[in-house]
Amino acid sequence: MTGAARVLVTGASGLVGRPTLNALVERGYEVHAVARRSAPADVPDGVAWHIVDLLDAGARRALIGSLRASHLLHLAWHAEPGAFWTARENAPWVAATIGLVDEFATAGGARATLAGTCAEYDWSASQPLAEDAPLAPATYYGICKDATRRVVKALAAVGGISLSWGRIFFLYGPREDPRRLVASVARALAAGERAPTSAGMQRRDFLHVDDVAGAFVALLASDVAGAVNIASGTPVTVRSIVEQLAECAGRRDLLDVGALASRPDDPDEITADVRRLRDEVGFAPAFALPEGLAQTLRWWRDQPRVL
Amino acid sequence: MTGAARVLVTGASGLVGRPTLNALVERGYEVHAVARRSAPADVPDGVAWHIVDLLDAGARRALIGSLRASHLLHLAWHAEPGAFWTARENAPWVAATIGLVDEFATAGGARATLAGTCAEYDWSASQPLAEDAPLAPATYYGICKDATRRVVKALAAVGGISLSWGRIFFLYGPREDPRRLVASVARALAAGERAPTSAGMQRRDFLHVDDVAGAFVALLASDVAGAVNIASGTPVTVRSIVEQLAECAGRRDLLDVGALASRPDDPDEITADVRRLRDEVGFAPAFALPEGLAQTLRWWRDQPRVL
Repeated sequence: MTGAARVLVTGASGLVGRPTLNALVERGYEVHAVARRSAPADVPDGVAWHIVDLLDAGARRALIGSLRASHLLHLAWHAEPGAFWTARENAPWVAATIGLVDEFATAGGARATLAGTCAEYDWSASQPLAEDAPLAPATYYGICKDATRRVVKALAAVGGISLSWGRIFFLYGPREDPRRLVASVARALAAGERAPTSAGMQRRDFLHVDDVAGAFVALLASDVAGAVNIASGTPVTVRSIVEQLAECAGRRDLLDVGALASRPDDPDEITADVRRLRDEVGFAPAFALPEGLAQTLRWWRDQPRVL
Repeated sequence: MTGAARVLVTGASGLVGRPTLNALVERGYEVHAVARRSAPADVPDGVAWHIVDLLDAGARRALIGSLRASHLLHLAWHAEPGAFWTARENAPWVAATIGLVDEFATAGGARATLAGTCAEYDWSASQPLAEDAPLAPATYYGICKDATRRVVKALAAVGGISLSWGRIFFLYGPREDPRRLVASVARALAAGERAPTSAGMQRRDFLHVDDVAGAFVALLASDVAGAVNIASGTPVTVRSIVEQLAECAGRRDLLDVGALASRPDDPDEITADVRRLRDEVGFAPAFALPEGLAQTLRWWRDQPRVL
């Protein structure tokens, strides 16, 4: 990367966005963050923070036009735990994302990396899922991300920018919303409360959120085009994850595995083929799963008790 | 249809939009037309005309929110002859179309019909192309229309509206832009000028613009969901079309068939399977091709000479 590249990060206050800021500063980017709310206290020095609602087309255009960033890392989307799969708010984010990339190209942008999802794939296809595996999103969220990718990929070609699309699989780590799996169990264990879970025999591909962020930054800094899986490449049962957390907390007694019903249509396995990320982008995760889970549990223990 | 259904027609001043107005008034709809420019002189009585740029999200939302239409016929898109295949303006129309359908559903809309294109299909697939033929748009325009359909189809499900998508093949008729094939030849013949064309051996599916409009209105008034080809179902060579026009004008001498180069990547045949339109929607075209071409030629003869 040449010295003075200016990057705009969207969703900068989010779970993935927040840790990308440190990684981008470390790589020497001039970092501009955009979010709807003001900057968290721990944002690294030198990051310029812009409070803009990207769904407001006029405000978005004004920001993109005045900033003239060379790089775009677009992570913002509607992400309310549970609800996002079918939320009406997906549609405005399709529109805003297409507008954002179009305006970025018009403003002289060179390189964009956007957040996609494993929900673009046909989950019944053979595992692990490489980037050219069949696409058949089963959810509104997945359909919206898939359609967005189709447009921005073609837009990059006519607009003369380089574009990559990081497909996030499953993630965990500090700051996660406690309505999500790992956070719900880690929070309960840290608080000494019972932690009910499903039988958890489904295999998933989990990556620590700092590694997800690091992978996005590495992808942005590379010249790899198209879709790249952002994942560990290693399937693990959900049951194994909650058991590791409980072991780590020394409180296996708090775990109620099987207390919650499994979803009948939940796929047996969703695992990424990570050869593109490893070999073409050159990214290797920093966290092994046991270490990442232990760190996540410590983070929850360090939080002031709200209840 | 129940008596007082209120329809909003977008692209109302366009080639297809204009003749839909008469068909909608005849069917008893309360018709609201929206376009960027003021109403043409020949708009039928009773049509309410709204001058709004649908790419302006605020103005669009205000219109949809105040109108509270039960029906939406969305035909507007960037359509500059020749240029539209790769025009940057396709992206804003993806965003505007998704916004429009989302806002229509929120405002209590019940039934939407949108304009798609044969450019969504894999043109190398076996002919004729039924609605479930493989999709592999080769152009930016086709990619944008295909992605839009993916989103609005899913949006209709979560938003609780009935949605259909009319895939336009090739059209001709009065008022066509003279940069387009049939209009360029008809105009030249009507003016007594030479008409250079390519060899024209490619087979295409042509439908008169009044029938395209009639098919869209019939589709809107039906409860057929999903994609429906809007076409004749009959392939005809481009050469045959220009020869019929020249015969009709009594000026075969003006035709220079083969004077223009053929595009090397032009598919041999693009023809629709029209069983859904005929059997499910119940639509039959009014114009046979020879009659439609003769009427188009007469229209050009009746135009005041500009040059």
